[in-house]
Amino acid sequence: MNEFEILDVINNRLSSSEFLGDDCAFLEDWNIFVTHDTLVEDVHFTMHTTSPYLLGRKSVAVNLSDLAAALCEAKYITVSLSMPSDIKKSFVEEFYEGINDICNEYGVKVAGGDLTSSEKIVVSICAVGKKISLYRTSRKFAKNGDCIVITGMHGSSSAGLYALSEFLYAGESLINSHLNPVPALKESRILSSVIDSNIAAMDTSDGLIDALYKISSASNHSMEIDINKVPFHPELSLFCSYNKLDAKQFIKWGGEDYQLIACVPKNIYEKLDKELFTCIGKVLNKSTNPCVFVKDGENTEKITKDIVCRKTFSHFNN
Amino acid sequence: MNEFEILDVINNRLSSSEFLGDDCAFLEDWNIFVTHDTLVEDVHFTMHTTSPYLLGRKSVAVNLSDLAAALCEAKYITVSLSMPSDIKKSFVEEFYEGINDICNEYGVKVAGGDLTSSEKIVVSICAVGKKISLYRTSRKFAKNGDCIVITGMHGSSSAGLYALSEFLYAGESLINSHLNPVPALKESRILSSVIDSNIAAMDTSDGLIDALYKISSASNHSMEIDINKVPFHPELSLFCSYNKLDAKQFIKWGGEDYQLIACVPKNIYEKLDKELFTCIGKVLNKSTNPCVFVKDGENTEKITKDIVCRKTFSHFNN
Repeated sequence: MNEFEILDVINNRLSSSEFLGDDCAFLEDWNIFVTHDTLVEDVHFTMHTTSPYLLGRKSVAVNLSDLAAALCEAKYITVSLSMPSDIKKSFVEEFYEGINDICNEYGVKVAGGDLTSSEKIVVSICAVGKKISLYRTSRKFAKNGDCIVITGMHGSSSAGLYALSEFLYAGESLINSHLNPVPALKESRILSSVIDSNIAAMDTSDGLIDALYKISSASNHSMEIDINKVPFHPELSLFCSYNKLDAKQFIKWGGEDYQLIACVPKNIYEKLDKELFTCIGKVLNKSTNPCVFVKDGENTEKITKDIVCRKTFSHFNN
Repeated sequence: MNEFEILDVINNRLSSSEFLGDDCAFLEDWNIFVTHDTLVEDVHFTMHTTSPYLLGRKSVAVNLSDLAAALCEAKYITVSLSMPSDIKKSFVEEFYEGINDICNEYGVKVAGGDLTSSEKIVVSICAVGKKISLYRTSRKFAKNGDCIVITGMHGSSSAGLYALSEFLYAGESLINSHLNPVPALKESRILSSVIDSNIAAMDTSDGLIDALYKISSASNHSMEIDINKVPFHPELSLFCSYNKLDAKQFIKWGGEDYQLIACVPKNIYEKLDKELFTCIGKVLNKSTNPCVFVKDGENTEKITKDIVCRKTFSHFNN
């Protein structure tokens, strides 16, 4: 089963589910948002390339990123940590120092949690946040003619991961993008301040093309982007040319950049700071079989579900 | 490190933590409660003795039990499921059928979640609930002279687990207590309807004596119970006498009965239905070195922190 098939199975079994929706769940009774992400050792991280401190930070950051895409600020988290019963005291100390530091930086309280033993380290964090916008975001809100805007640089995190796992030299910026991602909360606040309707938005945790395909599929609109408009870090070019790698593969398919992607009307895009937001394409007509067109100079690649299933950073594709 | 030492380390690292408190965290901004529990394959369960359906049910039940002890009703859960990438479709179907059934029984919505791969199955559930009482519960609220009341039967679940893991015959009631526990929500509602102040309460997920020691330690009051007043199922006696086991060990130290334990003034206890609630002892004087006295006929056992660390179902004691 790939991830899409598993989600279908789940959706068919749950009578009250909004599971197949977005990365954050809206709890209508209290007008709050909740998100829940789990990182598993040797699937999402390895202790050979990160530190307990950075693992603590990243575990929180990935949840703050989901809330940022929902135009929310986290207020509380709960931390469930599973770890081998013979783990060193220093691991626990440094892990919670990382948790504490990032929580203090973003005004988040650790409200509770759970401790259990397990063979591998598993960090499961649930974050509860409040809306900072009058409007909602959802993958399904893309509209014909919307500008597709993204924040930040793309491809850095996956190139950093590749360097770490293949023992290659890479600049600090690529390594940091992977080990210590910064959730786009500033950009989320700016976006909140200019929109005047619900918009399609999500983060690029599973890669840029994956996010575009998910929005396209949820909103039943095809999309077109120009891959050469996507900003990337100069260190990515250096790293790729030195190691004879294709930078565009990292930019298109690499996960964990934790940038925002949003579809907004043109007049809204014009109000956005062009240092922080880049328009990379537009939303096309409604379609019963939506896909993503990726222009690269003269060539256009048509991205369909099959290609996404094969290429994306999905833990169920093997 | 044992669990107490780990919690000390965490508490020292977190500036905003209420981590060391109770099983549910109170989110004051919204007047709601949140709890987060993780079940790990081959630590908390094994697929040799349970089914995907019952695993789904139990994963939710343990969180509802925590909310019940906080005098709350769950409204939403998020489900994070980690599982081997080659898992069968039927596992996912039956697991979510279990989740769906128990959620429908208790009026809970599945609001979202997360899917990742991992070697072992890990289920992490976060439940959000609302208060059904004007008053709060906490381990630290025990007061001198309070009656110690418990719901239900004790020792059944751990005896059921022992039977399953040692391939012994045991009655259905013991096996069901372990595989399909029923959270004490009815009893929580009754308790809510009669109290007129904050009370000490928690569930017995880690065993009766463990819960008593935790309340005693958090509230700095010693306690005294009569072990012969604790209700247990007739099948527990049969099982233990047939297999030459000591039933009292299961009653005292066995985990996962998911019953409520509360310390309430005598006049409140008198209002409670004696079919559902049993008074097993009383809260003693304040003490800087609190402990639990367990009377058994002529003998009294003094339970200290050392004994609890050695005896309880703690995943970090090995």
